[in-house]
Amino acid sequence: MKSMYFEDFEVGFTIDTEPKKITKEEIVNFAKQYDPQRFHIDENQARKGPFGQLVSSGFMTLGKSFTQFFETGVIDKTGMGAWGIDELRWIKPVYPDDSLKTKIEVLEKKLSSKNPTKGTIRTLQIVYNQNNEIVMTWISNFLIKAKSSN
Amino acid sequence: MKSMYFEDFEVGFTIDTEPKKITKEEIVNFAKQYDPQRFHIDENQARKGPFGQLVSSGFMTLGKSFTQFFETGVIDKTGMGAWGIDELRWIKPVYPDDSLKTKIEVLEKKLSSKNPTKGTIRTLQIVYNQNNEIVMTWISNFLIKAKSSN
Repeated sequence: MKSMYFEDFEVGFTIDTEPKKITKEEIVNFAKQYDPQRFHIDENQARKGPFGQLVSSGFMTLGKSFTQFFETGVIDKTGMGAWGIDELRWIKPVYPDDSLKTKIEVLEKKLSSKNPTKGTIRTLQIVYNQNNEIVMTWISNFLIKAKSSN
Repeated sequence: MKSMYFEDFEVGFTIDTEPKKITKEEIVNFAKQYDPQRFHIDENQARKGPFGQLVSSGFMTLGKSFTQFFETGVIDKTGMGAWGIDELRWIKPVYPDDSLKTKIEVLEKKLSSKNPTKGTIRTLQIVYNQNNEIVMTWISNFLIKAKSSN
């Protein structure tokens, strides 16, 4: 999809991403560096742990979900970073070979009063697995270029 | 440090992590997979971007900060995952060669009413750079094993 400017994002706008599979290798490699808890890096120990098997780091699920949104292309040329996340909830574990997709909805928008060449879009991301179960939800505050900045 | 059980974490308890350096290579490698925005993966394009140079993905800063907490050892044997994050704020950019450390403080604690073998500790993480500037803050809701589970 084409890049969208701040003005183009209406409250209530939604977009669905393509699904993407999570692999065991990726879970382990990510976790070794960014979340080295036993149930993310060691299959044998994970069996005795709180999830009964290996699960994805929630931080990895977060990065994958953002990347799914980014890959739609809508903020490719207009995204200027983000200033925060609210109410992130890990609802169900994500297992190796799960396939995740994300639905994004614009909840609010506000042009920056200090610098009106950009504005915040506040979006809800809902992450589903292949059984249409919600595994994670998170609210993001993205900074998006305004048309007036051109 | 020794693993701490739910009962051992008092409201107001704080712990400071060791500092850890962030490298350019790590910023780019992480971002290629989990946050492929230009200003995280391409030095030349980053110069023309909102930060004027390459910066760490906020998701990577988050994973590093959690890992710093994990490496203190206090939840090594007692951590049972987390159910959410609140009020994450990216306050200043993190640049290559910055050195980050995290201060963790217990804000609240609550034994699970459904399953009293564990409880939530709600913690504030404050991430500082080498100039003692706050680059990020986040509140986490960690599940911790209770002594009664033994």
